[in-house]
Amino acid sequence: MSDLRGTALIAHGGGPTAVINASLAGAIEQCRREPQITNLLGARFGVRGLLSDDLIDLNALDEDTVDALRITPGSALGSSRLEIRDEGFEQLFRLFERHNVRFFFYTGGNGSMETAMQIHRLAVERGYELSVIGIPKTIDNDLSVTDHSPGHASCARFFAHAVRDIGEDNRSLPSPVCVVESLGRNAGWVAASTALARHYEDDAPHLIYFPERPVNEDTLMAQVEAVYRRLGRVVLVACEGQMNDRGEPFGADVDRADSPVHRLPSNLGHSLARLISARTGLRARAEKPGLLGRSCALLVSEVDRAEAFVCGRSAVRAAVQGNSGYMVAIRRDSDHPYRSSTFLVPLEQVARRERLFPQEWITADGCDVKPAYLDYIRPLVGEVRPHVRIASRSVEGSRTAR
Amino acid sequence: MSDLRGTALIAHGGGPTAVINASLAGAIEQCRREPQITNLLGARFGVRGLLSDDLIDLNALDEDTVDALRITPGSALGSSRLEIRDEGFEQLFRLFERHNVRFFFYTGGNGSMETAMQIHRLAVERGYELSVIGIPKTIDNDLSVTDHSPGHASCARFFAHAVRDIGEDNRSLPSPVCVVESLGRNAGWVAASTALARHYEDDAPHLIYFPERPVNEDTLMAQVEAVYRRLGRVVLVACEGQMNDRGEPFGADVDRADSPVHRLPSNLGHSLARLISARTGLRARAEKPGLLGRSCALLVSEVDRAEAFVCGRSAVRAAVQGNSGYMVAIRRDSDHPYRSSTFLVPLEQVARRERLFPQEWITADGCDVKPAYLDYIRPLVGEVRPHVRIASRSVEGSRTAR
Repeated sequence: MSDLRGTALIAHGGGPTAVINASLAGAIEQCRREPQITNLLGARFGVRGLLSDDLIDLNALDEDTVDALRITPGSALGSSRLEIRDEGFEQLFRLFERHNVRFFFYTGGNGSMETAMQIHRLAVERGYELSVIGIPKTIDNDLSVTDHSPGHASCARFFAHAVRDIGEDNRSLPSPVCVVESLGRNAGWVAASTALARHYEDDAPHLIYFPERPVNEDTLMAQVEAVYRRLGRVVLVACEGQMNDRGEPFGADVDRADSPVHRLPSNLGHSLARLISARTGLRARAEKPGLLGRSCALLVSEVDRAEAFVCGRSAVRAAVQGNSGYMVAIRRDSDHPYRSSTFLVPLEQVARRERLFPQEWITADGCDVKPAYLDYIRPLVGEVRPHVRIASRSVEGSRTAR
Repeated sequence: MSDLRGTALIAHGGGPTAVINASLAGAIEQCRREPQITNLLGARFGVRGLLSDDLIDLNALDEDTVDALRITPGSALGSSRLEIRDEGFEQLFRLFERHNVRFFFYTGGNGSMETAMQIHRLAVERGYELSVIGIPKTIDNDLSVTDHSPGHASCARFFAHAVRDIGEDNRSLPSPVCVVESLGRNAGWVAASTALARHYEDDAPHLIYFPERPVNEDTLMAQVEAVYRRLGRVVLVACEGQMNDRGEPFGADVDRADSPVHRLPSNLGHSLARLISARTGLRARAEKPGLLGRSCALLVSEVDRAEAFVCGRSAVRAAVQGNSGYMVAIRRDSDHPYRSSTFLVPLEQVARRERLFPQEWITADGCDVKPAYLDYIRPLVGEVRPHVRIASRSVEGSRTAR
């Protein structure tokens, strides 16, 4: 225990997840138990609130509200993609002093962890007594060191169910090619998780591509045609950031700095479907659940929700024990039954580092995962139930009997 | 009761829904109770199976499988968009004779009901004793006479939850404009249902457009900008078939008969987002859940599932009572509590007739629904729970206190 005493401040950075509020609930509950924490504030819209002193009193929330946060997607505090620059840090420390902030919790991905690291270092330099702890959050699962990141398993669960159900629809009324665009820009973790949708040999997804493996267009067309010859239908999963082997976004509309429509969001699914139609002559369509993949409340992974809560709570415990400059990480203690615990990792080891999907979990043909990956992801996502099938029964005089 | 006795044959037509298999389960269960029905067959892939004698023995299914059908999306029999033409009807009657089919159940929308009507009429002409009953199914809710169609409420439930959760994400990390593309080509029923996502005054959806009201581009841009000025963000819902007032698909890529890529599926969401970006300078993105909207097993409406089952069962009862040339329809008996029953409507009254979203349920500005519509849809979709919000609390020295 340290003798640090004062206000705790919580902020969110980057895109929300379905369970970032569960981490918030964990942090709030633990803060209320710690006598060293005299006040509890939340920044409205992350960095924006930090720089404009737009804060809310989290102690004023009643218990029912804090409980309800556990099952609320999106960021209840509000988040931001703004970054703090030089003069911003000055403003931030003035805000810390004004509110006597001594515990700062930043929930985010590797970019937010860099900001947290900078704040920690500046506090040390200035001799401002402050405990800075990062709370991991990313649907992309690209944070280093931690076994996995809160937020990922729920997004994975959503996309696995989405591909299962879209696959069922596709099997019912075969349309030759269906492209499902998953979330994920540089890392293929979310696309990979759709492999959990499979139960029968011919189940979707039939092809999964990874941004870690730029894809040759001819190879992709040949793979699509091979599946089509075998099954008469193809469900293909690619994430929004998939590139071809010329390093170009795979047929997607992209950011064009020369246009007023800069930072145009991905249209990979539709563009790829159009390309496949043009090159193979097979009709293709695309689905893009998009933001729903990170916000769908009814498809949250219970393991994810529980771990997100625990990460929030662990961050507060670590802070009042006198730690600063760390992120909470998850250690997998057991697979059967699944059990995990938390530990602290220095922010330098996670800041701006991107953990990509491991090449050794991708099959040689580049369009599927290996079984070892399924062992990794299954306990986190939980069961993805198969749908029932009506087996073909022979009917006398009917074609199926022949 | 009639003295008709023989084989029952069930087929699916058109796009699957999340509950078409529940109707199948209802029909199978009832067929097994009727001594007049000596045999029970299902057509594989609808018309395709009917024309190629590809049938399965539904009596061979065990009870657990039939039970599981109730919660299985997609069409377990398989469906088709093929239509039957002249020589096809000859083939069909040969198949009827070969299997002694005396009860034919066709589950589908208004196109399938026309086919059912033709089969009924041909049977009468030929003096072939046959009972033909249509089972309603469409996510579009565009079948006439019936209060609503099985399949619609589950799709509506999906999109209402999708917009609720996407809205929560959008509120957390405001991106100026988010376009949600809903299912629905000519009828705005599904887009309309997203209004159920609203609980607070500023909740999404902020703008809903209807294919029944072609939209002037300038008006749309002005409406987007007005919401943005008020809230700093805009969630807009439009269905894939939305047109502008020049009668053009609203910025979407479309079927181009002169191209090998004909029947290109809608890209309305992305196209509209791009158009809004270009015209207003606001960043815009799009989500397109697409087929997931009609197949998502976990967002089925319980009322829909139960009614779909009952429609299947009622069709069989009607057939063994000697009726032919009718579709089962739903009558709303009470709203509080919600209760419904079924009745028979002559196929002529539903075949190829499209019930559009009523103009009197659209607000004068063309971008919202009126309360009377919400009274109609709410009992069918069930509760769409609001997410908790953290109210702004004043913090001394903080901006929110000013």
